[in-house]
Amino acid sequence: MVASVLDGRACAASVEKALIPRIEKCASQGVVPHLAVVIVGDDPASHVYVNAKIRTCKRLGIKSSYVALPETTSEAELIDVIHQYNVDNSVHGILIQSPLPSHMNEEYLTDLIDPHKDVDGFHPINLGRLVQSRKDCLIPCTPNGVMRLLEWSGIETAGKTALVIGRSRNVGMPQAILLAARGADTTVTIAHSKTADMAEQCRSADILVAAVGRPNMVKRDWIKPGAVIIDIGINRVDDDADSRGYVLVGDVEQSAEQVASWITPVPGGVGPMTVAMLMENTVQAAENIIQR
Amino acid sequence: MVASVLDGRACAASVEKALIPRIEKCASQGVVPHLAVVIVGDDPASHVYVNAKIRTCKRLGIKSSYVALPETTSEAELIDVIHQYNVDNSVHGILIQSPLPSHMNEEYLTDLIDPHKDVDGFHPINLGRLVQSRKDCLIPCTPNGVMRLLEWSGIETAGKTALVIGRSRNVGMPQAILLAARGADTTVTIAHSKTADMAEQCRSADILVAAVGRPNMVKRDWIKPGAVIIDIGINRVDDDADSRGYVLVGDVEQSAEQVASWITPVPGGVGPMTVAMLMENTVQAAENIIQR
Repeated sequence: MVASVLDGRACAASVEKALIPRIEKCASQGVVPHLAVVIVGDDPASHVYVNAKIRTCKRLGIKSSYVALPETTSEAELIDVIHQYNVDNSVHGILIQSPLPSHMNEEYLTDLIDPHKDVDGFHPINLGRLVQSRKDCLIPCTPNGVMRLLEWSGIETAGKTALVIGRSRNVGMPQAILLAARGADTTVTIAHSKTADMAEQCRSADILVAAVGRPNMVKRDWIKPGAVIIDIGINRVDDDADSRGYVLVGDVEQSAEQVASWITPVPGGVGPMTVAMLMENTVQAAENIIQR
Repeated sequence: MVASVLDGRACAASVEKALIPRIEKCASQGVVPHLAVVIVGDDPASHVYVNAKIRTCKRLGIKSSYVALPETTSEAELIDVIHQYNVDNSVHGILIQSPLPSHMNEEYLTDLIDPHKDVDGFHPINLGRLVQSRKDCLIPCTPNGVMRLLEWSGIETAGKTALVIGRSRNVGMPQAILLAARGADTTVTIAHSKTADMAEQCRSADILVAAVGRPNMVKRDWIKPGAVIIDIGINRVDDDADSRGYVLVGDVEQSAEQVASWITPVPGGVGPMTVAMLMENTVQAAENIIQR
């Protein structure tokens, strides 16, 4: 048996389709949803991601602003940009593309974003509301996209065991919180670099979410037969045979598809869902302005 | 083998001892740490808890204010009290004893507490900073007390498996976050009412934290031999043989002590730690005022 594909592109398309009437309704009330994207430095992957986000905005009728700052930008200059977008009533979402250059304090800068415009869901007040299972928060896009993909695919989660590999503040931790919450109802385990027996942890997981950023770290023979595999990793691996000089590889060995029941492709799995959820958060933020 | 006792009273006493010079230093700078406690209604257990907190304040030289409001208090009246304490510069910690009467929205009221004075650690901004593993948050007292008790007892946590039973926003969830964080480094699982095989989950846990509120829910034969048991449950069970008419019983069968390596007594385990952490948060909040 080969696993069915958890088609992030198709699911993202259905999310986007459902956004169109919401965007039109906002616009008809004089509020065109507007996302401001800021990128600092020359990281090639970051520029690819930002371009994808802006293209999606255009496709959906979401207004986008785009500021590209050089690697040498000072923190004070970036703070100025954040403040300008915070006070600009026409802007509903602010996204500072991660990672920032090493001379910047990402946590401190995230704190400065108006939580109502924090469409990344990285501000502590949004993360805290997530812990509280509240509806009035903007949820981090990648873990939220994973939940939506599971739901769209009709995968039952209640009572299942889930393993999240990775404990990052913006992906692994919120992913575990979402999987444990009422409604999702999985029995969730958080594993990480200090986990004693990763293979054994994987073998008992009905749903495995890998968010590590290490190519092929999870081996085919660690997978429980019939498991659902969500591969958040998207790693560039040098490959001279490829015209770009690299290929994109997940955190889970590709051959795991021989054992799993469902698996996300890399690329085309979680990535499109992250962008779709960003769009949804932006529209939500605009709707919140109208309702306030 | 009978398990060693995780003596919360002794650990709390050591925490309190370490607070004395900090409290004296604050006072010498003109800032006497000051906790304001508000209780609404007649729940007997809540009054017992509040009295214990106020007694501990007195013992340590922390100033306490105490407001007891009738069950019929309106939300607006309670909001007034919160606002008064928020703007009172002599008050460093505000505690609204849970549970509130059913006509009150606990979440909404918690949002109104100045996060700097949120010594319960229940405000979303403090929970969010906890997700971010930040130092500048006030951590919920019960899960923080559990971490301190493990540390004080010299129990190694890194690489161990931990099971948290219960996913409440103020206890189970923050407990799991703390156990998974860098430094603690356990591989943590969150189980709850929808968990398919609770017995099996328990059997694989090196550290078991029960935070359910159901007497004797965790059975002796579910315990992994040599496990560390933290029993957060403190349940009143009718007992005519007792002069009070009830006895206090944990979430874990007492006889689990025959299998475990360490176990918290009920009472005298986590309870005193919760109070000690509340004192520490109050002193921390006062120190933060001095440093600001």
